Amino acid sequence: MAKHVYDFAEGGRDMVDLLGGKGGNLAEMTNLGLPVPPGFTITTEACRAFLSEGELPAGLNDEIGEHLVKLEQTMGRKLGDPEDPLLVSVRSGAKFSMPGMMDTVLDIGLNDLSVDGLTKQSGNERFAWDSYRRLIQMFAKTVMGANGDLFEEAIAALKTETGAHTDLDLDTPHLKKLVATYKKIVKQETGLDFPMEPRAQLDAAILAVFKSWNGERARIYRRQERIAENLGTAVNICSMVFGNLGLNSGTGVAFTRDPATGARGVYGDYLEDAQGEDVVAGIRNTLALQELEHLNSAAYAQLLDIMNTLEHHYRDLCDIEFTIEKGKLWMLQTRVGKRTAAAAFRIAAQLVEEGIIGMDEALGRVSGAGLAELMFPRFDEKTATASLTKGMGASPGAAVGKVVFDSPTAVAEAAKGEAVILVRTETNPDDLPGMIAAKGILTSRGGKTSHAAVVARGMGKTCVVAAHELVVDTKAMTFTAPDGTVVSQGDVISIDGKTGGVYLGAMPVVASPLVRFFEGTFDADSADTDTRDLVAAVERILRHADARRRLFVRANADMPEDARRARLYGAEGIGLTRTEHMFLGERRKLVEAMVLAETDEERQAALDALLPLQRADFYAIFKEMDGLPVTVRLIDPPLHEFLPDLTDLSVRVAVARATGKVDEEAERLLPAVRRLKEQNPMLGLRGVRLCLAIPGLIKLQVRAIAEAAAQRIKEGGNPVPEVMVPVVGAVQELEHVREEAEAVLEAVSQETGVHLEKMIGTMIELPRACLTAGQIAESADFFSYGTNDLTQTTWGFSRDDCEASFFPLYMDLGIFGASPFETIDRDGVGKLVRMASATARTVKPGIELGVCGEHGGDPESIHFFNEIGLDYVSCSPFRVPVARLEAGRAALPKAVSGSVKSSQ
Amino acid sequence: MAKHVYDFAEGGRDMVDLLGGKGGNLAEMTNLGLPVPPGFTITTEACRAFLSEGELPAGLNDEIGEHLVKLEQTMGRKLGDPEDPLLVSVRSGAKFSMPGMMDTVLDIGLNDLSVDGLTKQSGNERFAWDSYRRLIQMFAKTVMGANGDLFEEAIAALKTETGAHTDLDLDTPHLKKLVATYKKIVKQETGLDFPMEPRAQLDAAILAVFKSWNGERARIYRRQERIAENLGTAVNICSMVFGNLGLNSGTGVAFTRDPATGARGVYGDYLEDAQGEDVVAGIRNTLALQELEHLNSAAYAQLLDIMNTLEHHYRDLCDIEFTIEKGKLWMLQTRVGKRTAAAAFRIAAQLVEEGIIGMDEALGRVSGAGLAELMFPRFDEKTATASLTKGMGASPGAAVGKVVFDSPTAVAEAAKGEAVILVRTETNPDDLPGMIAAKGILTSRGGKTSHAAVVARGMGKTCVVAAHELVVDTKAMTFTAPDGTVVSQGDVISIDGKTGGVYLGAMPVVASPLVRFFEGTFDADSADTDTRDLVAAVERILRHADARRRLFVRANADMPEDARRARLYGAEGIGLTRTEHMFLGERRKLVEAMVLAETDEERQAALDALLPLQRADFYAIFKEMDGLPVTVRLIDPPLHEFLPDLTDLSVRVAVARATGKVDEEAERLLPAVRRLKEQNPMLGLRGVRLCLAIPGLIKLQVRAIAEAAAQRIKEGGNPVPEVMVPVVGAVQELEHVREEAEAVLEAVSQETGVHLEKMIGTMIELPRACLTAGQIAESADFFSYGTNDLTQTTWGFSRDDCEASFFPLYMDLGIFGASPFETIDRDGVGKLVRMASATARTVKPGIELGVCGEHGGDPESIHFFNEIGLDYVSCSPFRVPVARLEAGRAALPKAVSGSVKSSQ
Repeated sequence: MAKHVYDFAEGGRDMVDLLGGKGGNLAEMTNLGLPVPPGFTITTEACRAFLSEGELPAGLNDEIGEHLVKLEQTMGRKLGDPEDPLLVSVRSGAKFSMPGMMDTVLDIGLNDLSVDGLTKQSGNERFAWDSYRRLIQMFAKTVMGANGDLFEEAIAALKTETGAHTDLDLDTPHLKKLVATYKKIVKQETGLDFPMEPRAQLDAAILAVFKSWNGERARIYRRQERIAENLGTAVNICSMVFGNLGLNSGTGVAFTRDPATGARGVYGDYLEDAQGEDVVAGIRNTLALQELEHLNSAAYAQLLDIMNTLEHHYRDLCDIEFTIEKGKLWMLQTRVGKRTAAAAFRIAAQLVEEGIIGMDEALGRVSGAGLAELMFPRFDEKTATASLTKGMGASPGAAVGKVVFDSPTAVAEAAKGEAVILVRTETNPDDLPGMIAAKGILTSRGGKTSHAAVVARGMGKTCVVAAHELVVDTKAMTFTAPDGTVVSQGDVISIDGKTGGVYLGAMPVVASPLVRFFEGTFDADSADTDTRDLVAAVERILRHADARRRLFVRANADMPEDARRARLYGAEGIGLTRTEHMFLGERRKLVEAMVLAETDEERQAALDALLPLQRADFYAIFKEMDGLPVTVRLIDPPLHEFLPDLTDLSVRVAVARATGKVDEEAERLLPAVRRLKEQNPMLGLRGVRLCLAIPGLIKLQVRAIAEAAAQRIKEGGNPVPEVMVPVVGAVQELEHVREEAEAVLEAVSQETGVHLEKMIGTMIELPRACLTAGQIAESADFFSYGTNDLTQTTWGFSRDDCEASFFPLYMDLGIFGASPFETIDRDGVGKLVRMASATARTVKPGIELGVCGEHGGDPESIHFFNEIGLDYVSCSPFRVPVARLEAGRAALPKAVSGSVKSSQ
Repeated sequence: MAKHVYDFAEGGRDMVDLLGGKGGNLAEMTNLGLPVPPGFTITTEACRAFLSEGELPAGLNDEIGEHLVKLEQTMGRKLGDPEDPLLVSVRSGAKFSMPGMMDTVLDIGLNDLSVDGLTKQSGNERFAWDSYRRLIQMFAKTVMGANGDLFEEAIAALKTETGAHTDLDLDTPHLKKLVATYKKIVKQETGLDFPMEPRAQLDAAILAVFKSWNGERARIYRRQERIAENLGTAVNICSMVFGNLGLNSGTGVAFTRDPATGARGVYGDYLEDAQGEDVVAGIRNTLALQELEHLNSAAYAQLLDIMNTLEHHYRDLCDIEFTIEKGKLWMLQTRVGKRTAAAAFRIAAQLVEEGIIGMDEALGRVSGAGLAELMFPRFDEKTATASLTKGMGASPGAAVGKVVFDSPTAVAEAAKGEAVILVRTETNPDDLPGMIAAKGILTSRGGKTSHAAVVARGMGKTCVVAAHELVVDTKAMTFTAPDGTVVSQGDVISIDGKTGGVYLGAMPVVASPLVRFFEGTFDADSADTDTRDLVAAVERILRHADARRRLFVRANADMPEDARRARLYGAEGIGLTRTEHMFLGERRKLVEAMVLAETDEERQAALDALLPLQRADFYAIFKEMDGLPVTVRLIDPPLHEFLPDLTDLSVRVAVARATGKVDEEAERLLPAVRRLKEQNPMLGLRGVRLCLAIPGLIKLQVRAIAEAAAQRIKEGGNPVPEVMVPVVGAVQELEHVREEAEAVLEAVSQETGVHLEKMIGTMIELPRACLTAGQIAESADFFSYGTNDLTQTTWGFSRDDCEASFFPLYMDLGIFGASPFETIDRDGVGKLVRMASATARTVKPGIELGVCGEHGGDPESIHFFNEIGLDYVSCSPFRVPVARLEAGRAALPKAVSGSVKSSQ
């Protein structure tokens, strides 16, 4: 028969699969000889068995009984003993932390008799009765399924009746009366009496924790966090210790280093005469941990000693909960502590310096997401203006602008060149134009997956949500802060998308020191210690990532200045140069001429006029990226994108006519725009189709590339152009383009007397291209996965239309964990990419495989691309350091790298 | 060393892979003891070796020499002998017929000396010199690559000079002069002399035939016909016999039965004193084959005997070419003959009756495409009006209407209820609205893959292209027929999309007798023999198909009357009921109310009003299909499809405002339409996304289905509803809908006291659904592949936007053989369907798998769906018999079924 129950002394943190995170760490501390209140853990396996079979595994009850007897012997008390009761807590503890998602019951063992025993034991009658009423309340709600509000209402009614301001003003008689009321509520609500039998309490609490694994909150959380459904939770039964037994008792939390900045030195809070939940409730002000030295120097010294032990043992920052009961220190929990991005880098570097971990481990403990966060511009904190409130940071960045309360005003003001912050209670798809126009978005409601949050993250726009304290009145066009400040339309505010801070007035925004470092303008001497240390830590770890990684990192850049920046950030080439901008601006007239051409000659004339302009564009990029590959994508969007909007034109024509005028330009363009109008431009005449349909278009583009490259070579440069054909679905398309492109390259070689390589490949962005990758590979020198479009066609939804309209709903429903446009969808899109890569390599082992969709800069996606053996990722210049870091982390052995998200 | 050359006596028709179709059949006839002029065949293998290595396989030259010597011995003449020359033809002959795509050279062996020998041999000097000039012309163009026009120009000049009307008016001296001129042209054009050496002529001609396999025409033809590139062609070297040696010579073609109607009895043409090319050129009128009896009764009797032998031997209709040289009959070619659709059915049934073939074979010899053709309405030929011309039938059907010459007029006239025929020189995407509005399309240019042809076939609209004889003047708005008739805008014409016929005036259109048969209104007694036989043949073969097939056939039907017709045509259920129309018409106001609702109550009120209407719709369909499954698809299109067009509304609002008025309805709707506007509606908020996003929408639809079914059950009916959820990409979407739908079904069961099955499945129409089919199958009772949308997303092109814009180009370029919206793309879309089906069956062996895209009615696609083991196909009611037939054919053993296209 399987063993389902482990004493703390029997376990260890390598058993988290079986004992959960909390149970594993309690066991670890117990075995380190640290003062942990004795207890035992029921395994996740027992939970899984219960959930699948609907009953407890055979023998579990007996096993619990045996461990309980042992616990009673150790403690010298019996569970719920009327004279000197042992009380226990029953807590969930899954493999992955799911804070607040599952159930906990404290003070198991109290009943009408043992409450007196607790009084005797503690010498504190009010404490005993308060513990008892807490048990009933928690047990009734959690275990018996009673409506928790009724208990809150009862206590509120009692306070009104007795004139008590807080719970603490209720005295023992009040609490006794409350216990009686609570029992009545239990009976009325559930038809059952609150159970007096201690073991019955325990058994019921254990079952409730098991069941809470499948509670709705827990299930949605797991979907979002992508935690497997079948893990189950362990249950920890731990003897209760009390921090609320007077001034020589107390409770606290501690970190072995500063989790905010990463600075060395202990860090934490302590609260006298209190229990853990009081610290969370924030009723009284806590003391800094150091104050404990004056209150109980022995306990303080012991705590520091323990923290040192733990940090060396865990080889990382530890986060600790402890209680002091009548002067004696008890360790209630430890785990590797969460930390800010800056702290993650600094602590990792410190631990390397201190000889505790190696560079691989240091790299495994930081994350690209953290690095990205550190690279955002930030408010200069020295010059903080009046803080209005703090919401939830939903999309990082620092935005300053005039307040507007509706989308049209945002659009109108932005059109005038004003920076605006759109303030709403919540956003909906109607607000999209305003969100695009605004520098930042602030909502008083919503959460991390609300419409505003999802859309803003998608656009990389600063966003603060859930600023509940603000009263937003969109009709009056004002919002009111808790201090009474009224902010009206046009007033300037500043919002911090990382911290959630909202400030009155314009906060100065400064570039991240890391950005200054990458761009070569960081002055270490004038920086403070924290900043200097951070930059040094990032540099060191990033260097190690570069040494480690197998994936090359390129950047997506359309302009010479972007290319230059990308190179500063460490890009090893340009993975995607979009040529669309080369058909815009002043050149729009030429595109119009091309589209409106009635003869081949007219069209050719327009193409000829474009040639020198494009050639100059390519020349400048090749110059910046000398010696590194530059992948140039042939024109991709449908033609009508270069023409005015059909609705606008139709309105212009109709209004002019209705008022007896003639809008000549609109009249001239309307027929062409109407002809080129497509119901679904994304699925229309674009990419290779357009290139094949418009005679001369391939020739123009390839010639511009070839002539620019030839010019560079003649100057002694080393351009490495790669011609990329977009939207290919069938190898025959690529064959036609290749034939034409090779002829042009050959011709320019002849004309200029310079040898030009014929590197011609395709963007793989359609499911069919993946499905027929073996055929396409025959004709392609490289594949670059365009995962944005591939996601669109694989899922059949477009980013523009859907990310704002139903993605928030889908996140709420748990259909997505993350937007598939941010993180590669492994099961669908990823499967196609994996299949295509394997097939292509079979056909042509040396084919170059890369990614140029936005997933190229996403940490989790980078790990996937590394796993399936691609050659490079390409991302926006700003994300290049992130990609370098994650590519390095992806190359680490699994044991070292941990999860993609690291420990932040 | 491989054998590369086979005497005719060494081969047989089972060797077509090696000897090609022509070679195999010549060998077959030789071995049957029929009078075939002796000769030999060089294998396709030799051709393949030559094409891949660039040189003839070792030993081939010697082998040809040996066979040539044997041939000379048999014939008692030597190739090109000056006294009594053997002349040979060199003809290509691939495995699959590629008519006119590759090269042929006749009269090899003639030169300045042997021309006199031929004169002596034939006693006809003019004949000898005419043969010589033909050789030079053909050889120079085909083998030496000279420009063929120069020879045509030379002969034209000579005719002018001599006053000759036709080639036949040129006498011997003229021809001698022409030979001299031709030789000069050869020298000037190629720098080489026309070769005098007979063996050199032969070798060069063989090489030219090999090379012609890779000629551009041949390659494009193979791409379109999907003939493999690597087959190569065989070369047949055959001793020449001459039908142009006087009145006791001649040449003819014959069929063993009437290939047009299928009637029993020989059928063919004969031309005295002529060669095969004269028959093709149509210079003189041919005689009916029967006349040969009077001209040469022995040869005629021998021919009939041979035809009987061949038909019994080939067990099918044979198509024969023969020549009579000085009274002696020679067989030049035979093959299984092409025939019309009607003939195919009748001949197959006759051969069964005659005990020559079995029912399986009969089924293998007809085709769904043929059956579809027979079901189109047709002109009543008895009442034929004046024929104007004959073009190429590009999309079958019979259309009658007023002539219009431009798209806007077509739209305007159609809006008035006029039937119109759009007449253009060629169409382009601008003409699309007019093509949609017209009953038929007629163009003077273009071909089978021109824009007009492709688009019309896609729309199932009657179309005639390539009516070259018509002079279309779109400015004058007239076209002129060869007989001088001028047809103006507004005149009525009739076009036959099958025959290409164009008629003045309104031809009466009659329903196909097969349609009358299926619908139970066919009166056999009053029909003529041909029609009665045809109906009987179709009935018999279709019955056999039903007995044979493994696939069930359902129909797509949205209305009760469609369902009724589908049942008459043999549908075994409804595979797709679209519910979109249930939100249109009068109900549009309710949809508007639903969309514009500002509160949950307002929305619910609109939904409640829709409920009884939808219930009545479903009730009527369930009643028609009693006892058979009806798959109801929940609402699929995006909401804005039920609202007015954004551009129209914007123009209305702007014009009203500009002229000082207010368009209240437009003002009211515009904000909602703007909000719901999507860039790419196909990739937007539709299908399951819409169902999840609009509270109450799932409940409404499922309740309407459930209540209708319950009502039918109470009446003693047997409704079999299946609820289909569209646009599912992730199993989680389906899980949410299933939960809600099951609850509604359960509730209606409770309310009505009737048991309702919970058959809930999904339309698989996104690549991601195929890729995650294993997950989705867990939650689906059935999959129905929506191959239209699946094709759109897999290829990333929408039918609406692309079929008219670049599909014609893609067909010309050979990128597609057939539109992937007509015939399933096996390599891409098909691969997804195959993968998904295999995975789904692994997870849930009993899952029902069907197809409801338009491919469900396409013959080639049906074979594919049968091959991968689907359970049913569903198609439009009209295609149901086609699908039954092809499903039966697909179930035949490979040896019997032949190709999908059968022998028509």
